[in-house]
Amino acid sequence: MKNMKQCCESKWKLQSNTPDLTRMKKRESLWTQGNGYMGVRASFEEEYADTVRDTLINGVFDQSKDEPAELANIPDTTNFELWVDGERFTMQSEEIDDFAMELNMRNGEFSRTLTWTTSSGKKVRIAYNRFISQTRKHIMAQTVEVSSPQAISLSVVSGINGKVTNTGVQHFDHPQKRAYPDGIRGLYLCTLQSKVDVAVHYSLTANHAWEGKTTIDRRSVYNHMEMELGAGKSVTFTKLSSFATARDIEYAGQTVDGATLAQDGIRYIQEAEQVGFETLRKENQTAWEAFWNDSLVEIKSGDIFLDRAILFSQYHLHIMASPDDNRLGIGGKALSGEGYGGHSFWDTEMFVFPYYLFHDPACARRLLEYRYQLLDVAKEKAKGYGYLGAMYPWESTWITDGEMSNQFGDLDLVTGERRQYYMNETEIHVTAGIAYAIDQYFRVTGDTEFMEKYGNEMIVLTALFWASRAEKKNGRYEILGVIGPDEYKEFVDNNAYTNYMAKKNLELAKNILQNCPEDLYKKLRCDYNVEKITEKITEVAENIYLPKPQEDGIIEQFVGVKDLKPYDITHYKTKTKVFTMFYEFGFAEILKMQVFKQADLVMLFYSMRELFDEETIRKNFAYYEERTLHDSSLSMCIHALVAARLGIKEMADKLFYDSCCVDLGDNTDNSDAGIHSASIGGIWLATVMGYGGLYVTPEGLSLDPVLPDRWEEYAFYITYRGTKLKVLINVEGCTVTRISGQEVKITVQGEERTV
Amino acid sequence: MKNMKQCCESKWKLQSNTPDLTRMKKRESLWTQGNGYMGVRASFEEEYADTVRDTLINGVFDQSKDEPAELANIPDTTNFELWVDGERFTMQSEEIDDFAMELNMRNGEFSRTLTWTTSSGKKVRIAYNRFISQTRKHIMAQTVEVSSPQAISLSVVSGINGKVTNTGVQHFDHPQKRAYPDGIRGLYLCTLQSKVDVAVHYSLTANHAWEGKTTIDRRSVYNHMEMELGAGKSVTFTKLSSFATARDIEYAGQTVDGATLAQDGIRYIQEAEQVGFETLRKENQTAWEAFWNDSLVEIKSGDIFLDRAILFSQYHLHIMASPDDNRLGIGGKALSGEGYGGHSFWDTEMFVFPYYLFHDPACARRLLEYRYQLLDVAKEKAKGYGYLGAMYPWESTWITDGEMSNQFGDLDLVTGERRQYYMNETEIHVTAGIAYAIDQYFRVTGDTEFMEKYGNEMIVLTALFWASRAEKKNGRYEILGVIGPDEYKEFVDNNAYTNYMAKKNLELAKNILQNCPEDLYKKLRCDYNVEKITEKITEVAENIYLPKPQEDGIIEQFVGVKDLKPYDITHYKTKTKVFTMFYEFGFAEILKMQVFKQADLVMLFYSMRELFDEETIRKNFAYYEERTLHDSSLSMCIHALVAARLGIKEMADKLFYDSCCVDLGDNTDNSDAGIHSASIGGIWLATVMGYGGLYVTPEGLSLDPVLPDRWEEYAFYITYRGTKLKVLINVEGCTVTRISGQEVKITVQGEERTV
Repeated sequence: MKNMKQCCESKWKLQSNTPDLTRMKKRESLWTQGNGYMGVRASFEEEYADTVRDTLINGVFDQSKDEPAELANIPDTTNFELWVDGERFTMQSEEIDDFAMELNMRNGEFSRTLTWTTSSGKKVRIAYNRFISQTRKHIMAQTVEVSSPQAISLSVVSGINGKVTNTGVQHFDHPQKRAYPDGIRGLYLCTLQSKVDVAVHYSLTANHAWEGKTTIDRRSVYNHMEMELGAGKSVTFTKLSSFATARDIEYAGQTVDGATLAQDGIRYIQEAEQVGFETLRKENQTAWEAFWNDSLVEIKSGDIFLDRAILFSQYHLHIMASPDDNRLGIGGKALSGEGYGGHSFWDTEMFVFPYYLFHDPACARRLLEYRYQLLDVAKEKAKGYGYLGAMYPWESTWITDGEMSNQFGDLDLVTGERRQYYMNETEIHVTAGIAYAIDQYFRVTGDTEFMEKYGNEMIVLTALFWASRAEKKNGRYEILGVIGPDEYKEFVDNNAYTNYMAKKNLELAKNILQNCPEDLYKKLRCDYNVEKITEKITEVAENIYLPKPQEDGIIEQFVGVKDLKPYDITHYKTKTKVFTMFYEFGFAEILKMQVFKQADLVMLFYSMRELFDEETIRKNFAYYEERTLHDSSLSMCIHALVAARLGIKEMADKLFYDSCCVDLGDNTDNSDAGIHSASIGGIWLATVMGYGGLYVTPEGLSLDPVLPDRWEEYAFYITYRGTKLKVLINVEGCTVTRISGQEVKITVQGEERTV
Repeated sequence: MKNMKQCCESKWKLQSNTPDLTRMKKRESLWTQGNGYMGVRASFEEEYADTVRDTLINGVFDQSKDEPAELANIPDTTNFELWVDGERFTMQSEEIDDFAMELNMRNGEFSRTLTWTTSSGKKVRIAYNRFISQTRKHIMAQTVEVSSPQAISLSVVSGINGKVTNTGVQHFDHPQKRAYPDGIRGLYLCTLQSKVDVAVHYSLTANHAWEGKTTIDRRSVYNHMEMELGAGKSVTFTKLSSFATARDIEYAGQTVDGATLAQDGIRYIQEAEQVGFETLRKENQTAWEAFWNDSLVEIKSGDIFLDRAILFSQYHLHIMASPDDNRLGIGGKALSGEGYGGHSFWDTEMFVFPYYLFHDPACARRLLEYRYQLLDVAKEKAKGYGYLGAMYPWESTWITDGEMSNQFGDLDLVTGERRQYYMNETEIHVTAGIAYAIDQYFRVTGDTEFMEKYGNEMIVLTALFWASRAEKKNGRYEILGVIGPDEYKEFVDNNAYTNYMAKKNLELAKNILQNCPEDLYKKLRCDYNVEKITEKITEVAENIYLPKPQEDGIIEQFVGVKDLKPYDITHYKTKTKVFTMFYEFGFAEILKMQVFKQADLVMLFYSMRELFDEETIRKNFAYYEERTLHDSSLSMCIHALVAARLGIKEMADKLFYDSCCVDLGDNTDNSDAGIHSASIGGIWLATVMGYGGLYVTPEGLSLDPVLPDRWEEYAFYITYRGTKLKVLINVEGCTVTRISGQEVKITVQGEERTV
């Protein structure tokens, strides 16, 4: 792991020839496996220190006192400890040879092989493999193969370990354990606060005679297996695990009892056993193959690191979104770790949503439906602050959970004062981002049914929030006291990103209300005087203040930004670590400096470039990029995207490379608590919407690709109004091929083409 | 650790020349440090897998749903991670040389030294040392010395880790963290159910210039320190930790707030800093020296394993009992691990109490006062079962907590039925054991003040329980449906141990009531008609059924024991592991066999030998020993004791050796969850009351020592009625010397001596 770039040979694989036991957490995050229903970190089967072993199921949130809800770490079934002649296997042993391990992104398998020489000199070959089924979402499958040229006594302990916590926080009550006659074992538990029942089952078999017993431990149940393995013989253990929770979409709208969960959990395993392990594996491989065949985004850059990074991005984007559940968001670390507790931020709409929009519109729709189901929560939140309409939570978890950002922090370490946080009150742009995504969705898919059922209502209610949030001042509507995307500036007035996005939201609503559909009218009428809100929204939409280029061409990120103290941040920008400026400055000082954490105005150029002329974009990009620390994983990819669109090649390439390094780079601990979903979405954004120039214009779809120097070609798929297109960019230009669906019109490099 | 016996050189030390990272838990238990207020397992400063890092403070119990209360694992301050030139130190590295570590029982210090060769070839010498102060009970002190012949960059992270749990069960709420200007850091938390506030503080200093910062992590606060160490230079880090809880005796009877705890916790460190580390260390060493000088029990057996075992026993007996708190019992694993949750069983009175009685009568009194404070709980329990008087809990924790044995177990693994446990209802002999200990205490100390204040009342109320529990049947009082010490037989009638001990309890009460002191009469009168209960107790005392030798001389352990199926258990007795019989038989089968888990009738010969003639004892010992598996750590020591008294030398020696092996032997995992308090008391019992023949007779104190073959000598101290005696046994016989106090009379080998 010291230098992942060098040790990898296939762009399809994350590989390592050392277990690097002192730095496992980041690799565990990056190599996470999943299927959108669950995510399992790539911890080793045997126990080591300084590791974070998580199984996370999207939607299974639980809260503990004084802390927001988080995805509860589910009891672990990856564990598999083995002893040879009474000696416990560990890679801490000095006698490990022929070590290799990989996550094969092509088929989703995590495998590890090695030869262990026991203290008596026996050579034991061990091969581990595991995958999470893409076709049976409740199933994880593992094999462990053990062989030796010498005769060995082999003991194995493997089962369900319920002693897991989220960094010391317990989320499950005292579990019950069962061992069934057909060899399936179960653990039944319930989250402490949210009262979500969870059933975990496994079966463990071996293709060699064994003696054994079932043992229990606190919160755990295990199989002990013992066998005598003849010289030159091998044995393969197969473990199937199933997970079922009361929040599974299968039970949506029902009250499900523990007995049903147990039954279903057992059935999942029985069905998997019936088809047999090889079929299970084949099913999974076939599903992955189909996925890649259908949607592979491919870069041939001559640098395997970049070629792999886009696959890595797509691999994670594929395993982070639920395949079928419209009640689930995508957490800041998805299902790859405990960071951010699985909370959905504005990252969803602005960073990962576009990928689904162009690859899997049904999934994009589910993500918007998740937001629709949060509408009540958003209305409640607006009400709580004295506003109208829907004010979305800054951080969302389960659809009924409400705002999950911390209002109060711990005591200040030094002063002992309780710290108050203002994200929920001031990072309000998340609401406009949702309306923006709905509009993007509608333009790309033309899904009027969605708009009628959900979209129009969401746009109007979010706009209504803005209309009530904006204050009349200086003869215009201003939005005061917010935090924009750049979190290094607090309580700013007329943040450009926020105001422009709010304007967009208001305009969308205005258009809908001008010709208000009957159904929507009826819905709105319950709570509002429709004519009055139409009037209000229209007035604010038309009179909201939008910061414009000043004499020097610079648009103020917020009022007074240019009055802040200038500071040359060049030497911080060369650091691979983030937050290095804090080694020398306090937050209070940085608040007063012309120093930015992340893209803010540049975000606007990404989302609504049509509002600005190229010179303005170019000038402002230069101005803000120079002052931006990129201390957020959301920043570099957007700057890369805008730089690529502007054709600032060298800078685009550098920023793109750095974006790929957020997770894949050498910075040892930045991904310990999970990959960065937004940054991973950002790799795709920078590739397809940056270099590829894919953009949803007011008129339709446009492509304006550039080919980075040294790249041979790159290609991606997009789905537009039901039609699937393949886009290939190489030195000869941009080829757009229709793969399926009706003819569509699309603008390529300024010219309309019919494909 | 593979063979601790061989690698140790000094009988004062537990030593190892390998860290044996795959089997650490047992060593962590055995090498536990403490001072009766707290116990800290001997985990390494840096993190490893498969370890149990516990800091336990007696009295800080907390309950979690469906489980009995347990000692809550307190946030850890032993942690100390270091990096050299960015490389993290771990003993997993292949490059560890000159490794040595030891627990020095003479001064209570746990130390470890080693040389680590970094990947760049630098030699780094690291020496760890830590102790828990015997004079400042809230203080733990640690040093880490690092040096290298080469220049190195050294980084250190050390602090308070609050992410600890009890095997996955969380006992503390979300903590608050503070960093104070004088370098002290604090973590403040509260147990979840029992609401006990806890304050943990530390300070970390180094005798070399450093740069650093304070960082926080979930539930944790740390120091980061960085320094450049010149070639050949060394640095010593000193860490002082303090622990304060709302249950500390200092606050008994008060409601203490978090601010007071924080103040006191800080003060403990400040006071320790004021005297300086070297003085702190000296204080601790001096206190240990004084302890050993005052009370060393010494065996010169020619076998260092035995010579060490008695020191090991005394070391743990010394650190397991509270130095000043009469609200605390002694857990089954004391403060050395999470096993048995810190619950006090009958082990306290029957296995460890005698040690304190003869060494530290004030401590013995406190243990009885603990039981006095449980009297309300015991009365409540009796009432709940429809009995009179005081029925002590089978398992006790905090004085107000009530019965803490599980009434219901988990679902049966196979049938899914909920299992009911009967310990609390049937293992009733614990109540008689307490009365027995009170009587022993009074005979040895003559402490009438204790009897008047507490003892008489306890004896009468416990006797009253027996009087109401016994049933009139066959013209006598029988005790039906109990579990005796031997837990392999359930719901037995007239268990010999229980009935004889109850008789003793009843007789003691009868004697008290016959001449009932005024104060006691007044106390009893509130709840009872004293004349009536006197009559009842007298009647049952005089008519309780005591199983007598049958024709063959055998006393039935319970009615019908000899009708059970005989079974030759010889081959199970040779196994070092316990419970091996369960590999072949189910519990239901063992219930029906003449096979016993542990001493039962033999317990009686230990506690009340005067009731039986020698032939009866000899016959029954032979009969039951042959059929006893010693599957309890409480068994072998008592058999050893009785065998020694009987002069069955070879068997006594073997059983004594095996008793010493319970914790110190090679059986790898039997002490993982903590040492066995009762067995550790048993080593002393077998030595002093077995070989030494120390016995509290109805008339006074007697010694009837034997010198085991090959032993050169052994010596011990006893305190009798305020007089301290030293007893030395060698080939020349038994010398009793008065160390302090008045002249006393004592019977030695049948002859009364005045010393």
